[in-house]
Amino acid sequence: GAAAAATASAAVADPYASDPARHPAFIARSERPYNGETPGTLLAASPITPNEIFFVRNHLPVPHVDATSYKLTVEGEGTRSLELSLDELKSRFRKHTVTATIQCSGNRRNEMSRVKAVKGLAWDQGAIGTAVWGGVRLRDVLKAAGLSEDDPLVRHIQFEGYDKDPASGEIYGASIPLHKALSLHDDVLLAYEMNGEPLSADHGAPLRVIVPGVTGARSVKWLRRIIPSASESSSHWQQRDYKAFSPNVDWDNVEWTSAPALQEPPVTSAICEPAPGTPVSVSDGEITLRGYAWSGGGRGIIRVDVSTDGGATWTAAKLLPPPPGAPPPGSSYTGAWAWTLWEATLPLPKPSDDGNLPSTLQLVCKAVDSSYNNQPDAIAPIWNLRGIVNNAWHRISLPLEP
Amino acid sequence: GAAAAATASAAVADPYASDPARHPAFIARSERPYNGETPGTLLAASPITPNEIFFVRNHLPVPHVDATSYKLTVEGEGTRSLELSLDELKSRFRKHTVTATIQCSGNRRNEMSRVKAVKGLAWDQGAIGTAVWGGVRLRDVLKAAGLSEDDPLVRHIQFEGYDKDPASGEIYGASIPLHKALSLHDDVLLAYEMNGEPLSADHGAPLRVIVPGVTGARSVKWLRRIIPSASESSSHWQQRDYKAFSPNVDWDNVEWTSAPALQEPPVTSAICEPAPGTPVSVSDGEITLRGYAWSGGGRGIIRVDVSTDGGATWTAAKLLPPPPGAPPPGSSYTGAWAWTLWEATLPLPKPSDDGNLPSTLQLVCKAVDSSYNNQPDAIAPIWNLRGIVNNAWHRISLPLEP
Ligand SMILES: [Mo]
Ligand SMILES: [Mo]
Repeated sequence: GAAAAATASAAVADPYASDPARHPAFIARSERPYNGETPGTLLAASPITPNEIFFVRNHLPVPHVDATSYKLTVEGEGTRSLELSLDELKSRFRKHTVTATIQCSGNRRNEMSRVKAVKGLAWDQGAIGTAVWGGVRLRDVLKAAGLSEDDPLVRHIQFEGYDKDPASGEIYGASIPLHKALSLHDDVLLAYEMNGEPLSADHGAPLRVIVPGVTGARSVKWLRRIIPSASESSSHWQQRDYKAFSPNVDWDNVEWTSAPALQEPPVTSAICEPAPGTPVSVSDGEITLRGYAWSGGGRGIIRVDVSTDGGATWTAAKLLPPPPGAPPPGSSYTGAWAWTLWEATLPLPKPSDDGNLPSTLQLVCKAVDSSYNNQPDAIAPIWNLRGIVNNAWHRISLPLEP
Repeated sequence: GAAAAATASAAVADPYASDPARHPAFIARSERPYNGETPGTLLAASPITPNEIFFVRNHLPVPHVDATSYKLTVEGEGTRSLELSLDELKSRFRKHTVTATIQCSGNRRNEMSRVKAVKGLAWDQGAIGTAVWGGVRLRDVLKAAGLSEDDPLVRHIQFEGYDKDPASGEIYGASIPLHKALSLHDDVLLAYEMNGEPLSADHGAPLRVIVPGVTGARSVKWLRRIIPSASESSSHWQQRDYKAFSPNVDWDNVEWTSAPALQEPPVTSAICEPAPGTPVSVSDGEITLRGYAWSGGGRGIIRVDVSTDGGATWTAAKLLPPPPGAPPPGSSYTGAWAWTLWEATLPLPKPSDDGNLPSTLQLVCKAVDSSYNNQPDAIAPIWNLRGIVNNAWHRISLPLEP
């Protein structure tokens, strides 16, 4: 009686009280909602990111959805309504797996905020990870609901999550274009497995969307409803959040409708090892760098250039073998949904004749994707008020010692 | 007898003697073979480039192919051989039109050669143009030849032209990936019309390939053969020419197989008006810039930023209505095959209190495509020995007068 009432009232007071425990290796970027980043050295250590250290990006409290009573609803234009339990999904549709990288569009925002303040979580380069996702094809479920490829009333597939803003009641939502949802090549999944294990609470249990090659915000977790529609999701996150503008546009003059919602992100890369600030002894003679590179839209990585002199000279890094299930780097014009890890061993500068040595080593990396897209050099010209899609060259500075 | 023999011998001696006449507005970049560039001010004047001033990029002498006796051959893996006259092509297959921009991968090479010498034609920003192409779908012809989408022996569609190197006998050739050739969304055409007129000799009469969203070198002119194959074209132009490498790779250490053949080019833009060097009077108070922006792969242009101070500050330009048959800028995630013309009117700098004025106006433009790809800032870090895909910010300098 009294104890139960007290618990209920505490739950109302703290919607985050039942959030799951997180791995101690995470760098927490916010606690309520929880957002946790994977340290760079752990990222570069494995082409598949272990589940327990895969970055967590929550917009709202973690909903607890019971897998046995779970229902997915498909309801909208051009389809008959469909309600599916998790068992029905697994038994009615063929299982597919896709090796795909998921990246938050705010990845590397911290660097952008050093140019000028932006609004958002202060991620370094660890709001990204790669997993083998297992589930059924969104395409197959839409076909089962009767959707026709050329229905003129359907241009977007909207998703709603079970997560809800405790104050406003707003439900997390996003959408993707119809052609992406239906393409056989694009492998959009309704996933119930991550690296062979059932999804955890933080990653969307029991069912989430995985949209390969598209920014993480569209891979809706704790999936509740699929809504075929003539229009995009009307959610805050589709209409007013994940968009970038000219550097002269700030909160006082932004027109949200003037830019499209981010879907495929541009080519990016980062140095994960050594960590910034690690002292380097010139007497070692050489230094080994490790990192990742990735591009949206299934564009594979064809080259990563690295520099030890701030970008004056460049050397191509070695591209490492792909994660299981992903095509080798450079082999494919499309369908490269997973990142490419790379490494490079470079000579360290030698002291000049008078014994002078630069005081820091300026490491830089930049990647090229299969459309020969290059990363922009500097951050200021791509600065945007929400601090998204920072894909400028990644630079880190290390103190040089004799 | 003697006169005919003399003519034949002259023709052998000069394989370019029967090349067609060209419009006097062209800026010729080479005469044998002929390569002619469209001046920037003419480019910016119209979303559709008039046929007679559409840039000409010839690798070899212009072959003269008689339309009435013309034959196209389809012959290779997974197909039965097919031979088609121009009339048979037109009558057996449905006509389609596609509004598409074609760009030479060497466009803007001239700027790159100022960083360090490169090999190739010295194009400024006019090796690009946009037309409404009319013809039949490559897909339809391949299906008629019996090609199945999932034939494991076919990964590429090779093309051969009727143009031939008079010295070596080498035939112009190129290829595109199978998925591009077969995609219903990608609109790869066998074109016999350019802006409603039959193709001219310089543009591939009577039939050429048009591969929307892909670099011009794959849109083979004077098409002779279509060859479904497990491998790419083995031609020089596929294997050793249209590839870019790290800036430290030069002719002494290039490994051609280490980079993929260019297909979709990256986002680019250029200022076409005013022309470089045009004097500007500060007393005019403002200046109007016009230009184009385009990206490969059907990625539309979502924004063009312009600067009058060398890139320190930016303003978004106005995106002009699309050419006929093309989607409006920013409206589509894919299928935007045509460029976006833009204009911007910006205030001119005012003299400071002591009457000082910068001596030049440093104009810059940069575009953003629907994958939020930005152009790289500088040319040196994307320098490559063949001088291709220069998509760094476009900069022009104008003398400032009181
Ligand atoms: Mo995100
Ligand atoms: Mo070209």
